[in-house]
Amino acid sequence: MIITKSLRIFFRSNVLTRRGACVETFQPWHKRQVSDRKVVFSGIQPTGTPHLGNFFGAIEKWVELQNDPKDVVYYSIVDLHSISLPQDPEYLRNCVLSMTATLLASGLDPSKCVLFQQSSVPHHAELSWILGCKTTLARLGHFPQWKSKAGKDKQGACVGLYTYPVLQAADILLYKTTHVPVGDDQVPHLELAQHLAKLFNLSFGTSLVSPEPVLGQFKRIKSLREPDKKMSKSDSDPKSRIEITDTKEDIAFKLKKAVTDFTSAVTYDPENRPGVSNLVDIHAAATGQRPEDIPDQVTGMTTAEYKMVVAAAVNRRLETVRDKYLKLIEDKSFLRDVLNTGATKAKLVAEETCSDVKRCVGLI
Amino acid sequence: MIITKSLRIFFRSNVLTRRGACVETFQPWHKRQVSDRKVVFSGIQPTGTPHLGNFFGAIEKWVELQNDPKDVVYYSIVDLHSISLPQDPEYLRNCVLSMTATLLASGLDPSKCVLFQQSSVPHHAELSWILGCKTTLARLGHFPQWKSKAGKDKQGACVGLYTYPVLQAADILLYKTTHVPVGDDQVPHLELAQHLAKLFNLSFGTSLVSPEPVLGQFKRIKSLREPDKKMSKSDSDPKSRIEITDTKEDIAFKLKKAVTDFTSAVTYDPENRPGVSNLVDIHAAATGQRPEDIPDQVTGMTTAEYKMVVAAAVNRRLETVRDKYLKLIEDKSFLRDVLNTGATKAKLVAEETCSDVKRCVGLI
Repeated sequence: MIITKSLRIFFRSNVLTRRGACVETFQPWHKRQVSDRKVVFSGIQPTGTPHLGNFFGAIEKWVELQNDPKDVVYYSIVDLHSISLPQDPEYLRNCVLSMTATLLASGLDPSKCVLFQQSSVPHHAELSWILGCKTTLARLGHFPQWKSKAGKDKQGACVGLYTYPVLQAADILLYKTTHVPVGDDQVPHLELAQHLAKLFNLSFGTSLVSPEPVLGQFKRIKSLREPDKKMSKSDSDPKSRIEITDTKEDIAFKLKKAVTDFTSAVTYDPENRPGVSNLVDIHAAATGQRPEDIPDQVTGMTTAEYKMVVAAAVNRRLETVRDKYLKLIEDKSFLRDVLNTGATKAKLVAEETCSDVKRCVGLI
Repeated sequence: MIITKSLRIFFRSNVLTRRGACVETFQPWHKRQVSDRKVVFSGIQPTGTPHLGNFFGAIEKWVELQNDPKDVVYYSIVDLHSISLPQDPEYLRNCVLSMTATLLASGLDPSKCVLFQQSSVPHHAELSWILGCKTTLARLGHFPQWKSKAGKDKQGACVGLYTYPVLQAADILLYKTTHVPVGDDQVPHLELAQHLAKLFNLSFGTSLVSPEPVLGQFKRIKSLREPDKKMSKSDSDPKSRIEITDTKEDIAFKLKKAVTDFTSAVTYDPENRPGVSNLVDIHAAATGQRPEDIPDQVTGMTTAEYKMVVAAAVNRRLETVRDKYLKLIEDKSFLRDVLNTGATKAKLVAEETCSDVKRCVGLI
């Protein structure tokens, strides 16, 4: 297992650039000047156990992104965002730790990335207030996620849900993020961060960085029960999703119950056969193949038989993750240590950016 | 001069209750348990030099409120609020120091009150985010100040202006404030703080305190140019207001130019003779009398002659303040020390409340 208890504030002290030259020795990680270094930020809400959609859609990408030793990668468990919808406090507290365990079990390595809990770094809320003083109401009213989450009674929705994108912009800008892995639905949110970075730099002479999206690399896994919708934590039917910690039996049961259609053969045609194609997508993601290449491998198999092939593939992909998770979740004090060390690292950079912004707008 | 450079974190270590009993010795000030102790919070924006309206309307009351040795009194220079309208950074930075100098010159004593800059205490923004997750948009849309400050183009106004009352509630609730000196126009703002305290206590088991207003003791000083409006920092005509640092000559000049009416005698009739009555109000406030008692003292005097009587009275009231201000403003490092010491004291309490709230909502 990669994770060790000896987390270091200073890491990657002796790194090679792509060109192979040794560029630095024993420098604080956030001070390192590497010309083509990426700074990546991404956040995940601690609300329930991640499912295959999260795993193949985001977490696998996170693990991949931490592996370039010259980049700095921040992953935040964004609990301040999650309270913008009602949360049970005890459940939320547990979810932060179980999300940490899940991410570590999936391959995040705290010596390669900065993994932290958003609310431990007060600068997120501070910068959010400052950015909110230059964000118009009109801009926030246009976000598709606000429209869908607030529902019909916009006036009855809470301020946190409405100003969510401003906090998200603060999350990103605090770390001088250059790259943000986002799904298509998050592009308008990233555009707000870009807009605010440019506006503040122009108006106040701050040195915020306008982030770029890392787009189009996210697999969209659909609900097993309604394959025209995304797989979702908030779906009331637990059979609609496979969670990372599901047992072999859970996985087989849920896939057996997956909605398909009346054609028995396995083909890949997302538009006309969304149910079967979703199974192919899951199979492809679990085995690292292209979905188009799958049907030829299972010619002559019925959908029912194929479901068990997919179940076996998913189980193979998840079993190590599940085993690691079950060990990690027993050691809560280790999980808290990981988050605290991450927060200490994050604060170093957040404090610097926040102070710079405060100085530039006249608060310091 | 009361102000000394030896500011103490622990003060009033040996205090008497109203009943005369010595209740404590060398206890941290914010831990003191006195049954009828008031905790007072009030904020002032660092935007321009305070004028007579601020001085007689709020600052004199602040000085009075700090004098009960069993109370704990917080006065904050609320710079996070002031950036909800456009600010020049250099001007804002200077205004924070000049406001500090003004308040000290007016009689605030950092050994009797906690005087601090809001943005130095990150818990204000943190608690504001959390409270905003339980405040509906509908509630904010009803605030009269939002309606007037945002003007006609509500959608073009910024988020900070809209969510201003939530930050104000955080300001108040962070210190377990029991009493807030407010003008009538601020009552709805205080009601939001009361509502949020009760809601959080009920929903999450926090121990926030629902604050009471200290009402009806504030003199309303009107503009010298348009006596149907309040005297205001933002009025474009500087002759509309007398600032605390105005010279004797400025005061006389502005009062000479004050709008009155065509009747020469001095009477007190705010409804029908707002201009002259405003002069009587200023005179009364400067000399500590009731306005109704003034006209008899100046019988036979023309309004023009009376203006010079008022000018002399105002100058007498302000000259010590002005002299102290001019000395204090020269010593910027002392002013910063006062604010930093205040922030250190404020943080002790703010940290405790904020952590309690975070624990109760599940963030810790």
